[in-house]
Amino acid sequence: MSKQKDKISTAVIRRLPRYLRTLEDLENAGTERISSGELSDLIGYTASQIRQDLNHFGGFGQQGYGYNVGDLKSEIERILGMGRTYNMIIVGAGRLGQAINSFIASYKSDFRVTALFDISEAVIGKVYSGVTVRDVAGIEQYLKENKTDIGVLTVTKDQAQIACNHLLAGGVEGIWNFAPVDLENTGNTPVENVHLSDNLHSLVYYINHPQQN
Amino acid sequence: MSKQKDKISTAVIRRLPRYLRTLEDLENAGTERISSGELSDLIGYTASQIRQDLNHFGGFGQQGYGYNVGDLKSEIERILGMGRTYNMIIVGAGRLGQAINSFIASYKSDFRVTALFDISEAVIGKVYSGVTVRDVAGIEQYLKENKTDIGVLTVTKDQAQIACNHLLAGGVEGIWNFAPVDLENTGNTPVENVHLSDNLHSLVYYINHPQQN
Repeated sequence: MSKQKDKISTAVIRRLPRYLRTLEDLENAGTERISSGELSDLIGYTASQIRQDLNHFGGFGQQGYGYNVGDLKSEIERILGMGRTYNMIIVGAGRLGQAINSFIASYKSDFRVTALFDISEAVIGKVYSGVTVRDVAGIEQYLKENKTDIGVLTVTKDQAQIACNHLLAGGVEGIWNFAPVDLENTGNTPVENVHLSDNLHSLVYYINHPQQN
Repeated sequence: MSKQKDKISTAVIRRLPRYLRTLEDLENAGTERISSGELSDLIGYTASQIRQDLNHFGGFGQQGYGYNVGDLKSEIERILGMGRTYNMIIVGAGRLGQAINSFIASYKSDFRVTALFDISEAVIGKVYSGVTVRDVAGIEQYLKENKTDIGVLTVTKDQAQIACNHLLAGGVEGIWNFAPVDLENTGNTPVENVHLSDNLHSLVYYINHPQQN
């Protein structure tokens, strides 16, 4: 497993979670091995693309055998940084914050939301999926006392940069941003954006330009 | 505005909603014109990239003047297919469905959720942001009687393909899928996926490979 290149393209990295998801489904279905052709049918990438992607991480495919589902899944998990626990907090305990909290609670146990934060008295103290909503005024103190890996932003547009600054000051390792803004001054801290409005506008574009879909 | 090419790359189309979002912010702030350099500072793409992107749609930039914010915004809105109403239904009235419903209610009036659907008796009949939850058993009949442009899937993994089939049978023009599956048999109907788990795994990759961020 030593062939890993120094620099893996963003496009390949973006495809890895999808491989992982498919391999998990296969494993759950009891499938032990799979060819690049069969993976291609499931994932939609070409078999050649799949072989090329997976070659970046070493040659686990064997001629005439294909890939061992469990081994390939473990290797992709390792590359993606699984196998440790990620503590998360969510800033913004409105419907979207609750939805992300609920998603994480039902997702892999490697991810754990330890606290929700909000500015509104109406919601502070409430408990969602076992997680208590705290006053955002105490967020930096909380981060000092509780090692937190990922901060999730589900606040409104005008609160996003302020909340982001708290997360950075508190030393989170990564930010998952659902607010419709491009965060500033994040330095080397990775930010993953889910811009719902951008996504919706792209869909509408393709609805209006069916030939380009 | 006649220079539009036959085929615009996916990458350019993906950037357009971000231009739109930035131009809306500028317009709200009272800014009337902007250079590609200033847009570059705001958006993070290079000025040359911006000029190239916007050239796809005709030459609205003027040497020494830059872009008229309102005109450019209108043109991008036109390209993206705004200026008409999009009726939407949401299948899955759990926390995520409620969050998307609430997002749409507070977003542009061009988008309108007309109904939520769910399989669970516990939630059928409830009203969220003014929208009633209906029994999913009646979804195809509803779609027959109410022209619906976009179907949103916020159901569980095992319900997603079934719900997708209902949406397709009911003639929706596009599907916004939040379920962690790759939908099948969607033909020419555009599907926009928001795979939260994939997104989270990408973030974790970058947390573990900071040099690649």
